[in-house]
Amino acid sequence: MADFMTAALQEAHDAKRIGEVPIGAVVVYHDQIIGRGHNLREHSQDSTLHAEILAIQEACMTLGSWRLEDCDLYVTLEPCPMCAGAMINSRIRTCYYGAMDPKAGVAGSLGNLLTDTRFNHQVQVVSGVHEQEAAALLRDFFQAIRAKRKAKKASSAPKQ
Amino acid sequence: MADFMTAALQEAHDAKRIGEVPIGAVVVYHDQIIGRGHNLREHSQDSTLHAEILAIQEACMTLGSWRLEDCDLYVTLEPCPMCAGAMINSRIRTCYYGAMDPKAGVAGSLGNLLTDTRFNHQVQVVSGVHEQEAAALLRDFFQAIRAKRKAKKASSAPKQ
Repeated sequence: MADFMTAALQEAHDAKRIGEVPIGAVVVYHDQIIGRGHNLREHSQDSTLHAEILAIQEACMTLGSWRLEDCDLYVTLEPCPMCAGAMINSRIRTCYYGAMDPKAGVAGSLGNLLTDTRFNHQVQVVSGVHEQEAAALLRDFFQAIRAKRKAKKASSAPKQ
Repeated sequence: MADFMTAALQEAHDAKRIGEVPIGAVVVYHDQIIGRGHNLREHSQDSTLHAEILAIQEACMTLGSWRLEDCDLYVTLEPCPMCAGAMINSRIRTCYYGAMDPKAGVAGSLGNLLTDTRFNHQVQVVSGVHEQEAAALLRDFFQAIRAKRKAKKASSAPKQ
């Protein structure tokens, strides 16, 4: 389990390297990674290209099926409604995630869409996998952005 | 408003023509359609290729931005969690939809994600636009499938 989250974290690092919010995901079938993705929203200027969507799309292509039954998804951050919905639609078996997202997460933080029995499929949820590492990656990313902004503001302030 | 739903219905007819569940969507900016999509799940074998996702992706490409502020989305069926989430993520202003989806709709039927103030953006919802036409399209599609299945079953039954 932890090894697959390590692969998702590697995807998150790939996102960070290109200036994207560091979130990564992999889809696993029979102990093999069949889909990978990292957040590409800024580079693509496409609001739908979250890590999970890209990993699910690649997994569908690999299996030649939109039904990802017996597949598990590992993602470094708790999924948003779009990504949780994509997991329900693709019949993902279990979602393992790292850090919680109190602002947009719907796999524990703001309710739980994945286990909602009103939908035609439920996804099991395992949270807190490599949580510290996933959370630190995001925290450091946003701290660096704030520091850059502060420095920029200071350098552009009128001199007394 | 009705004209844009007519365009969404046209997309739904395009889906029906190729054997997909007939659902269509368009994204509108300043009275111009900037994104179109129809359900392509079966043809692509990709669980994420709902009408709304494709329309949003095209609209992002047209505007060169993941922020679809001041954009409205017209869709023939009430959105599922994935598509409602994509609308929140892309800052869609208003979602106009046709038929309700009591099994998976989250813009009135099973709660309303779009107007949920816990998220960082809310999408206004206008339901029941060309509702009869949108609902009939879906009803006829599934009736035809059931009729085909019944005929096939009857023809393959052992003769007495």
